[in-house]
Amino acid sequence: MNDVRLIRHALISVSNKSGIVKFAKSLIDNSINIISTDGTARYLREHGVLVTEVSNYSGFPEIMDGRIKTLHHKIFAGILGRRGQDDHEMKVHNITPIDIVIVNFYPFEQAISEGNCTSSEILENIDIGGPTMVRAAAKNHEDIAVVVNPNEYDCIIDEIDSSDGYLSSGTRIRLAASAFEYTANYESTISSYFNEKSLISKGKQKRSRNCKFPMVFSKSFKKKQTLLYGENSHQTAALYAEENFLDPSVLTASQIQGKALSYNNIIDTNAALECIKEFNEPACVIIKHTNPCAVALGKTIFEAYDNAYRADPVSAFGGIIAFNRILDPLTSSAIIEKQFSEVIIAPSILDESIKILNKKKNIRLLQCSGIQSNRIYGFDIKSIKGGIIIQDYDQAMISENQIKVVSKRQPEKKELKDSLFCWKVVKYVKSNAIVYSRNCVTVGIGAGQMSRVYSAKIAKMKATELGLKLKGCVMASDAFFPFRDGIDEAARVGISCIIQPGGSIRDKEIIKAADQHGISMIFTGIRHFLH
Amino acid sequence: MNDVRLIRHALISVSNKSGIVKFAKSLIDNSINIISTDGTARYLREHGVLVTEVSNYSGFPEIMDGRIKTLHHKIFAGILGRRGQDDHEMKVHNITPIDIVIVNFYPFEQAISEGNCTSSEILENIDIGGPTMVRAAAKNHEDIAVVVNPNEYDCIIDEIDSSDGYLSSGTRIRLAASAFEYTANYESTISSYFNEKSLISKGKQKRSRNCKFPMVFSKSFKKKQTLLYGENSHQTAALYAEENFLDPSVLTASQIQGKALSYNNIIDTNAALECIKEFNEPACVIIKHTNPCAVALGKTIFEAYDNAYRADPVSAFGGIIAFNRILDPLTSSAIIEKQFSEVIIAPSILDESIKILNKKKNIRLLQCSGIQSNRIYGFDIKSIKGGIIIQDYDQAMISENQIKVVSKRQPEKKELKDSLFCWKVVKYVKSNAIVYSRNCVTVGIGAGQMSRVYSAKIAKMKATELGLKLKGCVMASDAFFPFRDGIDEAARVGISCIIQPGGSIRDKEIIKAADQHGISMIFTGIRHFLH
Repeated sequence: MNDVRLIRHALISVSNKSGIVKFAKSLIDNSINIISTDGTARYLREHGVLVTEVSNYSGFPEIMDGRIKTLHHKIFAGILGRRGQDDHEMKVHNITPIDIVIVNFYPFEQAISEGNCTSSEILENIDIGGPTMVRAAAKNHEDIAVVVNPNEYDCIIDEIDSSDGYLSSGTRIRLAASAFEYTANYESTISSYFNEKSLISKGKQKRSRNCKFPMVFSKSFKKKQTLLYGENSHQTAALYAEENFLDPSVLTASQIQGKALSYNNIIDTNAALECIKEFNEPACVIIKHTNPCAVALGKTIFEAYDNAYRADPVSAFGGIIAFNRILDPLTSSAIIEKQFSEVIIAPSILDESIKILNKKKNIRLLQCSGIQSNRIYGFDIKSIKGGIIIQDYDQAMISENQIKVVSKRQPEKKELKDSLFCWKVVKYVKSNAIVYSRNCVTVGIGAGQMSRVYSAKIAKMKATELGLKLKGCVMASDAFFPFRDGIDEAARVGISCIIQPGGSIRDKEIIKAADQHGISMIFTGIRHFLH
Repeated sequence: MNDVRLIRHALISVSNKSGIVKFAKSLIDNSINIISTDGTARYLREHGVLVTEVSNYSGFPEIMDGRIKTLHHKIFAGILGRRGQDDHEMKVHNITPIDIVIVNFYPFEQAISEGNCTSSEILENIDIGGPTMVRAAAKNHEDIAVVVNPNEYDCIIDEIDSSDGYLSSGTRIRLAASAFEYTANYESTISSYFNEKSLISKGKQKRSRNCKFPMVFSKSFKKKQTLLYGENSHQTAALYAEENFLDPSVLTASQIQGKALSYNNIIDTNAALECIKEFNEPACVIIKHTNPCAVALGKTIFEAYDNAYRADPVSAFGGIIAFNRILDPLTSSAIIEKQFSEVIIAPSILDESIKILNKKKNIRLLQCSGIQSNRIYGFDIKSIKGGIIIQDYDQAMISENQIKVVSKRQPEKKELKDSLFCWKVVKYVKSNAIVYSRNCVTVGIGAGQMSRVYSAKIAKMKATELGLKLKGCVMASDAFFPFRDGIDEAARVGISCIIQPGGSIRDKEIIKAADQHGISMIFTGIRHFLH
């Protein structure tokens, strides 16, 4: 089957004019005629490209300030006509076949994001002619080509140049797929805008909530990577990126060595990065199964790593390690000596460090700059059977002046510092979560338990098995204590200060227990459930 | 501001003809002229509705087997003309203003899902004229109305009837939003189809994987409920349903009593339902913080509940309870007597049971029929910062003839039964997961630990604290044992049979350990990580 198609007539109508002059000139060099719309035609002519105005082609003027220019049956018939099948009808109606359509749309997304556009300016940026031409051309890809992305110009010219003016079926299908991706994204953006507008017009809900939760949630993500498999080898999986999201994340990180990230690597590294972002001081976070198994601060990241490793060497094996400072050779050597690690991520990694880590080629080494900034963005989406549940990310974090001491005994300065450290860690531990710490190093972490008491017991068990003393430690709990037994248990192991949200109906009883044991107790007023 | 608009001319072009005759007749009763396309015009005329053919309106015939019929500048100018502003131009070019557009599209989704359509039949089902009219009308909603959904017909007629032929601005905006939702969904479906087609043409990936993971993942969900808050009170949240998903789930369940489900109720109930679906025998699952804290079978669900409750009464407090049989009065009374529960869900609930449970009005009571069927559908979506990671749900489940006994000692019949029970439970416990059971009742569940050894220790701790003996219990592990220490520890507490995936590089050593202790060991070949 002869599946190449000769290109003789091109239609160009672009809002984004980047690269269009060079591309148009190359088309003309290949003896291709150019039909073009008002603004584009003028622009091309100014740059020395000879074009036919679309109104000359259709015999109908541009009217309604451009609302009607390409929306003409002769244009659509030229695009949609099936070569070999509709040739006679095209001749009868004096329709020139169009072989390639080069179109991109009015910048709707830009108009809505530029706060200063009026409602009717936004409406004018809904392109009608453009999407119709693109969709028609993509539908008829068996005969014609469609180009929506300026990045494609060069390789299309290469193909036309090297094949005496033809484009292959494979190229036309690929271009059609890219065209429908473009229209799908464009429609999705417009739909979200209208959903919001419609809800505001109803006036039934507050604006802020409407923007967040439209009646239809439809969002597009671009595939970054098909994964080898999912959480387990019998599950397939792929990684998708939110468009225009440039904040530091696993998706913006660059990989320096090691195999591709697995599903579990990605979710663990994401957890490690989010946790490390909480700290300004040099810090180290070690993650296993999406839970921190050790977190520590230090004067340097070497000290932080050393502290973290010693806090739970058993769980650290095979863990994901994150830093918030440049990864130096000393710390790199320490990791290599002490443990196996799946992933190491840091804002920057010195060449000397890379050389050292290169001795263990299995370590996936990631560089992710800018992780000090923690601008929150987007939604947390969780699947349930039959749907999804969407929420804001947990963005809350308290500072020293927002806490409330509820016990008679005030926390010492050191206890206060450890409380704030512990509170940052407990936010990233699966619920129910209990964290013990001393000198800004975790001493025991109790994660993911169905009863709060067990989380406390696990944290204690870990600490004691490693010979770490709990006497004088600070304890953080991600949610309030329902009964005083948790406080009694804490007193028994020697905890001197507890930080927790408060808010139980038995708070009085719980504060009384703390006072009886001489424990200082801090309420944050904020819960950090995480599942 | 006078924001109502008089409706005089309607354009109708529908692929789905349900309700259109009645609607068209009502329009005519309101002195509205109807312009219609080929097939729709014929259908309406056959049903006694007087219409003008679109080709008479435009003065241009339908050509290319219908590819070009509404794609005419007179149609678009009639739709896009701004009343008051473009009136003169419309008069000059003899354009009748169209005030309402009633259009739905060629059934593209149906064409691709009907396996027997050829590639070119599928292409013909990409509607070009329809979406252009709808988009143009929605853009011009300040002056005209657009209807894409037959369910709207009645309320539009009501409004026109009651206002002497006018439609309000609020209605037109709502209709425009609904129109862009429709086009966005349509484009998204086409885009996925083309992505797949394009990848197949490249021949680089297998078809099955392509269908699943298109270059752009764009999916729409309909809002079911805005939640009071998210995982914590400082997070906002909403619940969205996948369209056309009717399998039993939290989203299909009907609530009989109690307050609205919270974020945490929804994720816990989802976990409870998915777990209970694994069992054919009468079963009870109690969930806390998305983990099963107890699971049991019984001759009846009363026995199953009693077994489950006694397996972990501490964690059961405030839990979510799921059953796979009709909830009877006996079991209902037992729950009320023994514990506080946030949610109870069962396939059906007897009136007598509802009366009993009504004594505790805070219990959210849900009925979800058909939970025995566990047809798997859709994707598991997990958010990471900057994107999402998509995978199949973990659909694997082994049967007796798929397992492999690797130890010298063969499991006894009872051990085998318990192994298969335990294996179903461990699939729903967060990793690392260890489950002990006896007589198809969990004895200890170790969830969400960063080290497998700790999961085993927690499970043991729970059992012993409750006075439950581990001697002769079966143990399930969601992933392989990296070292023999886990087996030695199991032997120490008296475990007689272990079920696990196998696949460690030290499997030989691990099997040897089992043989030394006289433990029977089963390999499933399947891992069940869950985070």
